[in-house]
Amino acid sequence: MATDLEIARAATLRPIREIAEKAAIPEDALEPYGRYKAKVSLDFVNAQKGRPDGALVLVTGINPTAAGEGKTTTTVGLGDALNSLGTRAMIALREPSLGPCFGVKGGATGGGHAQVLPMEEINLHFTGDFHAITAANNLLAAMVDNHLYWGNELGLDARRIVWRRAVDMNDRALRSINAALGGVPNGFPREDGFDITVASEVMAVFCLAKDLADLQARLGRIIVGYSRDGRAITARDLKADGAMAALLRDALAPNLVQTLEGSPALVHGGPFANIAHGCNSVIATRLALKLADVVVTEAGFGADLGAEKFLDIKCRAAGLAPKACVVVATTRALKLHGGVAKSALGTEDVAAVTRGISNLRRHVQNMQKFGLPVVVALNKFTGDTEAEIAAVREAMRPLGTKVILCTHWADGAAGAADLARAVLELIEGGSAAFEPLYQSHVSLAGKIETVAREIYHAASVAIPPPVAAKLKRFEDAGFGDVPVCIAKTQYSFSADPTLLGAPEGHVLPLRDVRLSAGAGFVVAIAGEIMTMPGLPRHPAAEGIGLDAEGRIEGLF
Amino acid sequence: MATDLEIARAATLRPIREIAEKAAIPEDALEPYGRYKAKVSLDFVNAQKGRPDGALVLVTGINPTAAGEGKTTTTVGLGDALNSLGTRAMIALREPSLGPCFGVKGGATGGGHAQVLPMEEINLHFTGDFHAITAANNLLAAMVDNHLYWGNELGLDARRIVWRRAVDMNDRALRSINAALGGVPNGFPREDGFDITVASEVMAVFCLAKDLADLQARLGRIIVGYSRDGRAITARDLKADGAMAALLRDALAPNLVQTLEGSPALVHGGPFANIAHGCNSVIATRLALKLADVVVTEAGFGADLGAEKFLDIKCRAAGLAPKACVVVATTRALKLHGGVAKSALGTEDVAAVTRGISNLRRHVQNMQKFGLPVVVALNKFTGDTEAEIAAVREAMRPLGTKVILCTHWADGAAGAADLARAVLELIEGGSAAFEPLYQSHVSLAGKIETVAREIYHAASVAIPPPVAAKLKRFEDAGFGDVPVCIAKTQYSFSADPTLLGAPEGHVLPLRDVRLSAGAGFVVAIAGEIMTMPGLPRHPAAEGIGLDAEGRIEGLF
Repeated sequence: MATDLEIARAATLRPIREIAEKAAIPEDALEPYGRYKAKVSLDFVNAQKGRPDGALVLVTGINPTAAGEGKTTTTVGLGDALNSLGTRAMIALREPSLGPCFGVKGGATGGGHAQVLPMEEINLHFTGDFHAITAANNLLAAMVDNHLYWGNELGLDARRIVWRRAVDMNDRALRSINAALGGVPNGFPREDGFDITVASEVMAVFCLAKDLADLQARLGRIIVGYSRDGRAITARDLKADGAMAALLRDALAPNLVQTLEGSPALVHGGPFANIAHGCNSVIATRLALKLADVVVTEAGFGADLGAEKFLDIKCRAAGLAPKACVVVATTRALKLHGGVAKSALGTEDVAAVTRGISNLRRHVQNMQKFGLPVVVALNKFTGDTEAEIAAVREAMRPLGTKVILCTHWADGAAGAADLARAVLELIEGGSAAFEPLYQSHVSLAGKIETVAREIYHAASVAIPPPVAAKLKRFEDAGFGDVPVCIAKTQYSFSADPTLLGAPEGHVLPLRDVRLSAGAGFVVAIAGEIMTMPGLPRHPAAEGIGLDAEGRIEGLF
Repeated sequence: MATDLEIARAATLRPIREIAEKAAIPEDALEPYGRYKAKVSLDFVNAQKGRPDGALVLVTGINPTAAGEGKTTTTVGLGDALNSLGTRAMIALREPSLGPCFGVKGGATGGGHAQVLPMEEINLHFTGDFHAITAANNLLAAMVDNHLYWGNELGLDARRIVWRRAVDMNDRALRSINAALGGVPNGFPREDGFDITVASEVMAVFCLAKDLADLQARLGRIIVGYSRDGRAITARDLKADGAMAALLRDALAPNLVQTLEGSPALVHGGPFANIAHGCNSVIATRLALKLADVVVTEAGFGADLGAEKFLDIKCRAAGLAPKACVVVATTRALKLHGGVAKSALGTEDVAAVTRGISNLRRHVQNMQKFGLPVVVALNKFTGDTEAEIAAVREAMRPLGTKVILCTHWADGAAGAADLARAVLELIEGGSAAFEPLYQSHVSLAGKIETVAREIYHAASVAIPPPVAAKLKRFEDAGFGDVPVCIAKTQYSFSADPTLLGAPEGHVLPLRDVRLSAGAGFVVAIAGEIMTMPGLPRHPAAEGIGLDAEGRIEGLF
């Protein structure tokens, strides 16, 4: 069987200006990056403002296995299928991070016959957006320590600095460091640490900014730390916001690429819906809505993380309202949620599928709580049996939710045609009535409790007193109105990655909260989740290399 | 007076394929990055191998003031002037680092009417080469700590790890850190630190690699540390070389841009001849030699650093032999070397110029020691007087060296036409007989002593016993044949930045030596020079931002 990389390499790509033409983007709005990638100029983006919007379709999923259940693949397959049915569709994806590429999960360009291309380039440096974000993050960090070094005019308390450094790599050794050691020339020693770039507030600012002016304003509001008496000190106080915006200027233009079947796809902004808000950029989503009748976008991991943040953070901030929602599942993952060991997922087990459906059911019901009509996309694996598939269909009937068997991985657009028809039906049905889960005026703790109760089915949230005090301080400082971005394991509704299925009555243990004043949300870290992943015993990097013709091998 | 940025913005750039056409690079060999930058494919580079080489001209300088004396500007002006005289000339420059852009020195795209464009893009992310190098460096670092974490099969001694992390930023707080703090999940605590990306061995490997295969082989030879019993452990032992090569693959293709006057310029590889070898890439220089009759390239800082390393490291490794050498000076800098305070450099002072000429004279004589015919380019400032200029001419006469007054900063190509004629005369004279300063078989300490004596005019080199022991170990391990790369202040022939002019009898204090087995040299750190710079009290970043139209302001 051909690997994703082999399928990608065998494809004949079309020049990016042809793809742009399909999407009604004129050639003079393109900044080419090689032959098959281009940035769409912000001037063109801004000029589309008066046009009507297409329909937004959100693809999300159940709690995944380590390999993922194919949300990106489904997003691509659905977009291709819509185009093949004659609907003008665009796809809006998130950019891959180097961390998973070299770690466990691999790239993020879809798979099989539902991929965006050029696969190797998108998965590695693409158009440099994440590098720009990393540089802006670390310029601010350098200016923080430099400010201390030269006399600390603003009175930053070195113990109250909250701005961390960033690197787009899984590197656990950088989670917690002592910096500025070695004496006077190196500055004032202090505790510090690195997050992976996708978890940087600069990534969130980048993804949520409406335009360049909003980007710079948000960057300026970033709080880097506090004075001894609790006064917030911002990037603007350090005069860092302008240079950060300059570093991000070119990156803010969305990236256009193509699918294997030639559909236009905008791939822009950050993944990692577990530790970040994890949505593609507002600018890209809005542009796609101006250019297409249907826009298919994805939210990461399970709907408890990705979709909840997509809806409560991104849609709220950008005034977006999805018209339909696709929840992706596989019988393999349902069996896992039904208690089957990873090694036995290939064997028929209808009872386990039926038990595991509890996970799917809750995600579907959760999406319905947001006012979204839902269809389930069941990604077919070769080992799936009719009885297993029938069990899924049966279980969804009481919810009024169709289950569509999808084979786009093997068959491309044709394998998602039924899904496309079902999605069009939902859109045309006009039953969507999107509302965020909570109102802005609810307290920060109240918002966390609402998500925990309504989405996770937790009995309660355990908020240690120092964390509660921090939430209180954020509210006192005028940030009570922002939404919350909960960082939590992607494997369970709870904060415990081993609690599969649809756990009830668990306690969500908050470990820390961080104010992202520029992004406009409060990050609440629950359980053991890390804002800097580690590499596995045998990182994917060990298998990556160049062949004799200089082509990249081992990326997946 | 127009700033560099204003002049750059006012220019009408030509599409990069027109510039390529001038250089006989076909459009299908271009990978465009926007409209005005392109990478030249490695396939095309490889296909040129059989063609004859043009003449290589090295532009170097006296020990500079903090602002630089205009080597890049002169390189650009000379290339433009050669083209305007009907010679097919190409320019081969180094890429700017973000460190100086946000720190003190500003960008590295020339100045006035002798610039490469697009100025903002080249100075910020350009085509992402340095980001790729940073990522490759830090992937290896993450794999080192990950190896310790998962059981340390190779037996790395955590105290003997020599691989450091990298960031393309001036950030003194990262020079010396304790990493992997925080308990079991974060790994084994150890001392670590960051260098600026240009000082990474990956940068040197990138610049010295002949092709992709050589790149990967060199990456594999990088030594990350030693076992308790002194066994070297390499990037290949960690299986990191393939993924590092994959990260660098696209970056290895040289970048084509244009000057203000439309000359083709290849801008590729690393600056910082003080702490690194600091040369542009071998691949770019070789390609330029295949495409042009005359190639003008630069080496950083004074000829004691940049040119010495260019000749002893790069030319030796790549089999290059310059035909002529330009030494750049300004009367302002000569006055500084003659003891005048920075605030008084604008006032005529012929006696000070005459004293400061000692610095210029030694650099010219040093270049002659390498067998190169030399011309002095005197970059004119408005305050320069006839008497000062005459003093320089007079002093160079006994060396047989012409002094050419240059005004390309104000006048573009026309201002460097005399210099171009003088350079063509040197090339046609055929007197060049390049020889490196020392032979490969000389001991490592002997090589350092040779450079110190012949180039720096030091009385001796102080090598502390632990450093001497390290040199001995490198030789015992089979690395005695490699050249040395001395890291030293750029402001003086000595390791003391305040010793201006032409000091004699000083002692060169070695602080440390590092083996770069992949690059193929030994770094010898002399005096207080840091492999990670710091930001000044008011970094240039404070003045950088976006204007109302989203254009970048404050870059210089």
